[in-house]
Amino acid sequence: MTEIKATNITWHEGHAGRAEREAIVKQKGVLIWFTGLSASGKSTIAFTLEHALVERGHLAYALDGDNIRHGLNKNLGFSAEDRTENIRRIAEVGKLFVDAGIVTCTAFISPYLADRQAARDVIGAEDFVEVYVNPSLAVCEERDPKGLYKKARAGEIKGFTGIDDPYEPPTDPQIEIDTGTVSPREATSLIIGLLEERGAIPPLNK
Amino acid sequence: MTEIKATNITWHEGHAGRAEREAIVKQKGVLIWFTGLSASGKSTIAFTLEHALVERGHLAYALDGDNIRHGLNKNLGFSAEDRTENIRRIAEVGKLFVDAGIVTCTAFISPYLADRQAARDVIGAEDFVEVYVNPSLAVCEERDPKGLYKKARAGEIKGFTGIDDPYEPPTDPQIEIDTGTVSPREATSLIIGLLEERGAIPPLNK
Repeated sequence: MTEIKATNITWHEGHAGRAEREAIVKQKGVLIWFTGLSASGKSTIAFTLEHALVERGHLAYALDGDNIRHGLNKNLGFSAEDRTENIRRIAEVGKLFVDAGIVTCTAFISPYLADRQAARDVIGAEDFVEVYVNPSLAVCEERDPKGLYKKARAGEIKGFTGIDDPYEPPTDPQIEIDTGTVSPREATSLIIGLLEERGAIPPLNK
Repeated sequence: MTEIKATNITWHEGHAGRAEREAIVKQKGVLIWFTGLSASGKSTIAFTLEHALVERGHLAYALDGDNIRHGLNKNLGFSAEDRTENIRRIAEVGKLFVDAGIVTCTAFISPYLADRQAARDVIGAEDFVEVYVNPSLAVCEERDPKGLYKKARAGEIKGFTGIDDPYEPPTDPQIEIDTGTVSPREATSLIIGLLEERGAIPPLNK
């Protein structure tokens, strides 16, 4: 076995504190919750933001369908009950990430007001930034990168948000972005400006 | 809305890479999976390790019953099925933390070999360090900080690991610690030595 080297380690009965971790990464944990229709551009903005933050030396992490629906939540479907459990688990994971000191982005349709309110409650309103990605439905349908709207209109997919399942828009989002007219780059700049204003990340040295 | 300041942000179609995040925090993501009986000392070592790493400037995070059983997994009980789902979700969250570049500790009884193997498969063997916390059952029963062994012996709790539910020991753990004779401080030093050897964290400057 390895030789015991450190002798200044003390026995702790609880977790290290969030503030200690935030001091290491020189940022504050925060959750940026993107909500909007399928093909509204949530993930694109979340990825662009994640990259921009990482390039500035910040630890940022995006949770989206790719790493959640195929992993933690692969045993959930798209019934109202499963959608609620989907968002509940994402909020709980987001809370852990924020506690770890990470600038965390979540990009999920999250169509129901009550589920997003529950997420805000779990994470804490002071650490929760709601971004409503809100192009028109027509823009989303025109993009339709996976052909899902087409299938939903043809009745081949049931319970599709915006077609035959409701999307309940945020009543008071911190930021609203019409990606029909605002580019991912512009959206990212807006959000970074907000994070600087909130003190989650320091402003860039000019 | 905030003035658009940054103009050098490009549009990305996927996640930022793990290596980019690891460069920011100057460490490698790794999962240290503690397994052992109730009261074996898993959480105590995990917390001591977490604190020691944070004091050295490393972003470390411990997942344990406190932040998982009361949050993400609060809708799970202790049936064999729920124990499996409990460990599955922890492994999936651990995978995300490792991908975020964090030195992650998980402290759960995780009594079944197959569940731990599944966790190792999800996370990837190269990022998975199994630590078997293995004092004698007698030591655990004597500690019994929550009086659970007493209740299990009295039949007031059913399905208690080590009493009337099996614990399947690791066949090839990276580290085995008898906390009957090894202190949390010594255990932490052993694990830090291993993390240094693996290149997950740089050695301390002497």
